[in-house]
Amino acid sequence: MMSWEKNVRKVVPYVAGEQPKNPNIIKLNTNECPYPPAPGVGAALHGFDCSILKRYPDPDAALLVEALARRHGLSPKQVFVGVGSDDVLAMAFMTFFQSGKPILFPDITYSFYDVWADLYQIPYECQPLDEYFCIRKEDYFKENGGIIIANPNAPTGVLAQVSVLEEIIKANPDSVVIIDEAYVDFGGESCAGLINQYENLLVTQTFSKSRSLAGLRIGYAMGSEKLIHYLNDVKFSFNSYTMNAVTIAAGIASVEDEAYLQDTVAKVVRTRERVKKELSDLGFIFPDTMTNFIFAAHETVPAQEIFEALRTNGIYVRYWNKPRISNYLRISIGTDEEMDKLISFLKDYFGSCYTGGQKG
Amino acid sequence: MMSWEKNVRKVVPYVAGEQPKNPNIIKLNTNECPYPPAPGVGAALHGFDCSILKRYPDPDAALLVEALARRHGLSPKQVFVGVGSDDVLAMAFMTFFQSGKPILFPDITYSFYDVWADLYQIPYECQPLDEYFCIRKEDYFKENGGIIIANPNAPTGVLAQVSVLEEIIKANPDSVVIIDEAYVDFGGESCAGLINQYENLLVTQTFSKSRSLAGLRIGYAMGSEKLIHYLNDVKFSFNSYTMNAVTIAAGIASVEDEAYLQDTVAKVVRTRERVKKELSDLGFIFPDTMTNFIFAAHETVPAQEIFEALRTNGIYVRYWNKPRISNYLRISIGTDEEMDKLISFLKDYFGSCYTGGQKG
Repeated sequence: MMSWEKNVRKVVPYVAGEQPKNPNIIKLNTNECPYPPAPGVGAALHGFDCSILKRYPDPDAALLVEALARRHGLSPKQVFVGVGSDDVLAMAFMTFFQSGKPILFPDITYSFYDVWADLYQIPYECQPLDEYFCIRKEDYFKENGGIIIANPNAPTGVLAQVSVLEEIIKANPDSVVIIDEAYVDFGGESCAGLINQYENLLVTQTFSKSRSLAGLRIGYAMGSEKLIHYLNDVKFSFNSYTMNAVTIAAGIASVEDEAYLQDTVAKVVRTRERVKKELSDLGFIFPDTMTNFIFAAHETVPAQEIFEALRTNGIYVRYWNKPRISNYLRISIGTDEEMDKLISFLKDYFGSCYTGGQKG
Repeated sequence: MMSWEKNVRKVVPYVAGEQPKNPNIIKLNTNECPYPPAPGVGAALHGFDCSILKRYPDPDAALLVEALARRHGLSPKQVFVGVGSDDVLAMAFMTFFQSGKPILFPDITYSFYDVWADLYQIPYECQPLDEYFCIRKEDYFKENGGIIIANPNAPTGVLAQVSVLEEIIKANPDSVVIIDEAYVDFGGESCAGLINQYENLLVTQTFSKSRSLAGLRIGYAMGSEKLIHYLNDVKFSFNSYTMNAVTIAAGIASVEDEAYLQDTVAKVVRTRERVKKELSDLGFIFPDTMTNFIFAAHETVPAQEIFEALRTNGIYVRYWNKPRISNYLRISIGTDEEMDKLISFLKDYFGSCYTGGQKG
């Protein structure tokens, strides 16, 4: 090792779901939406005046912030935008979790939380979900340096009631409580309605799931003016211009087409509901989901075997070899046609498992 | 102050040059290029297939990295891309300046360096430029936790020779040395040619100046495979997907049109050279510049007065009320027409100053 290397920050990077280059893969592994973004997004790109790219973009992304504020019934001073909700959440960790006391989050949740905590040297204590993958609110009534809860949770899909989260927020006036609502559009109730009541509540959402814009990188946070002000100060200490001019224009077009969003969500939910029934018939068990994915274990065949069989046959789902969830697959909801292929493959697969007598 | 606020990271954010919304302003305050980006950028946007935006972008931005590697004669493993060079540099500070020993940079330089150092709690010692705004290499021969030098420097425009920088790099095998080449295309020689010799050298460049793409947010770093690997590890600990799919496509189109880049740079340099003569005739003095801006003091009229007169008349330049540079204006090179208006205004202004007997 060269001497300069001693002083390098060494981290274990997060490993995201695979992004295969082969377009024939049925990609149900990163919870993307199978439908294209709102038509206005294309119009914004295809009519974009490129000569303005010579100028720096608006550092406040004011027009996008205003569109989001209108959509959520908030003031623009209550909205912060970033390069995907990962950018927003990483900045929120850095801004709000500075007490030196451990922050709290569930033992099974979005796997970036502990990565950010390690990166910023923030101590943390994972709180075990119950046997149904539900949070136990009492776990969050102790002293802490901050709380983050994904709702609905990932990768479980389980939704906590807003009233339960409100009890946690109310019990922690000394901490910032972040509710990460990446999947809330698929059937959950948002905590955004509590923002004007609780100054310590930050709610994050993303354009990557329900808005079909994972490729554009937009996430946002909503909270009290004070919280948003602190976030902006930290953001402007890194990089004044994070959101580019094209993204701002395309993002606004998405926000302004509420009907398209609702239509897309309805299609995904319809597919999810029938796939739940089909997976159940095939012997899968899973907590009820309010997201665009299903977190399922099979009653007889180990998840890793199913995962590998699917993968070999060009169907990608997500699998983690981690405590408590190593027998589960996280299956994103694709188009009806994609899900038909999944179910059809699984029928054959379990058929051969059972009749061949080699498994189960 | 609410109790949660005690644990918030409080920073003094960087204040960027103003981005006025009025298009009639002659904007010579943020060193943007006055010409539009390469025509291929427009083609990339206007023909973009929006349906792919439903998928996450390539987290490695491999096609853009490969295009940059080809352009610079490097391997793709020697190139890292980020959301503007501010993103790249902030990540490099976080990754490489971890020794606890003070990092070194000039007293007059890009004003984000001390902001990042403060943000990451990195100690630093500013090294005074000499009376001609040149670095003194001996200042960088002492023990340190890392070095960053902008070359050409901002806001002075002064270029250091590669041979001088090489002495500094060679004298510091225990530190990472970053050469920030945001403006190098306008007449400087790059240190990129030294990368294969010095494992501790990181060279950063940007699409925001010579490529007329400030609005798109692309910066990049070039260095040894080891340095780039460490940077990627830290990047993937924050946010796997920072560069969106549209930006990757548009960025590649820019890199692939070398002739357009050279033509744009030649136009800016031609304008700069004649404006240098005109400013000199008007009584300005300035160090020679190898950038797209001129850092000029007037021999009789204080910079702040000129700054305010220009501003009142719709011409924005940059002014800092800071030690050693409070009598200087940083004037970006605009189009010939914009610079004609600047010169014409200044002629009238100094004429009235001198004949009116109120100033000078």
